[in-house]
Amino acid sequence: MDLLEGRICALAALKAGRRTFVELLIRQGTQDESIRDLLDAAAAQGVPVKRVREEALDATAHAKSHGGVLAVALPLPPAVLPEKADFILLLDGIDDARNLGYALRSAEAFGVQAVLLRRRAWDFDGGDVSRASSGAYERLPVVIGETPPPGMALVGCLAGASRTIYDLDLTPPLALALGGEKRGLSAAVRDRCTSKVSIPTREGAPSLSLTHAAAVAMAEVARQRRAKLGT
Amino acid sequence: MDLLEGRICALAALKAGRRTFVELLIRQGTQDESIRDLLDAAAAQGVPVKRVREEALDATAHAKSHGGVLAVALPLPPAVLPEKADFILLLDGIDDARNLGYALRSAEAFGVQAVLLRRRAWDFDGGDVSRASSGAYERLPVVIGETPPPGMALVGCLAGASRTIYDLDLTPPLALALGGEKRGLSAAVRDRCTSKVSIPTREGAPSLSLTHAAAVAMAEVARQRRAKLGT
Repeated sequence: MDLLEGRICALAALKAGRRTFVELLIRQGTQDESIRDLLDAAAAQGVPVKRVREEALDATAHAKSHGGVLAVALPLPPAVLPEKADFILLLDGIDDARNLGYALRSAEAFGVQAVLLRRRAWDFDGGDVSRASSGAYERLPVVIGETPPPGMALVGCLAGASRTIYDLDLTPPLALALGGEKRGLSAAVRDRCTSKVSIPTREGAPSLSLTHAAAVAMAEVARQRRAKLGT
Repeated sequence: MDLLEGRICALAALKAGRRTFVELLIRQGTQDESIRDLLDAAAAQGVPVKRVREEALDATAHAKSHGGVLAVALPLPPAVLPEKADFILLLDGIDDARNLGYALRSAEAFGVQAVLLRRRAWDFDGGDVSRASSGAYERLPVVIGETPPPGMALVGCLAGASRTIYDLDLTPPLALALGGEKRGLSAAVRDRCTSKVSIPTREGAPSLSLTHAAAVAMAEVARQRRAKLGT
């Protein structure tokens, strides 16, 4: 069972409508008007709403910042790769739910249409991912173990690559691959890359974290595409 | 007292030499050759090295990933703004040690020379900041409560700004200001901004997290400056 904590996350899940909900828990004393959007979304999905005491919410929630809203739902069903995608993010070696959530949040912001996770199985707490993603996880397809569609460019971000992200044309359809901080991109992904690029950073400074490197690289894809469109 | 957990963080602190150390704890059984750099740095600073049992490290450390290395030190002394800085980061409303650490890590990578924190006092766990920063906190001056030097451009990142970070010349000396996710930049900072810019993101997507927005904006400053230098 996933706990979707906080208003943003619960509302995103209810609106996306991809989950089966058990119930929506609301802190006793909360005025209907202040959570009208949540109540409407729950009603539209036929989700029972229960008013409970603050202590009951605290005892159930993982984080302390549920703010009086907690949706209880089954995990998201497996997602599939959208047929017409021109921007995919492949994450290889992401290691915690919070980091995955942040990566999804940035991915959605920069126009990524699907995220591929290179791992055997989903082993994150879906509620924690959703919360860190600010709800992006409810909307963005996250696909486990698949590779980008055949024929799609695969651009690997590698610390050592001599070409930088700024030197490569990132406007054609592509999947952007980033690896974990300890091991980088696995050989299996590296070997499939059609281009390898680096993010230039100051010598002697620590490398960027995976999610921050991903945000910078995705922003550059978005920048180049906007510039090409002249917007 | 700050606990500097893990090899990267402890070594960065010892090498930077800005702290007063109490001791360096090493897991019993660790071969000297495998931690030669740490032992040398500790000897250079006159820091006592103690071999302790794994359980003692676990009991002392905050995180489980100390990897057998833990330096115990006094908090960093207050930092001062370097006289000749051309790239400063001002963070207004950062709320946790891990996020601050990540921001410092990216800041160092993109050539920031000092970070200003707009808050009344330092109230983070210095060890947690240092660990998340991958050691950047030990090297980069982090100054509390000060404003950028008079005459320096202050560029505020604001979600609503019509001009984007890509439309502004970011090559002159500047301080880049970003605000927390809930309240954004405070009015006091907004009023002092000489320019306001936004990071273009997809409509309907959640905003970027503070540290990810900061990474993208800092990367753009670095990109423009590199392009100007023709490197």
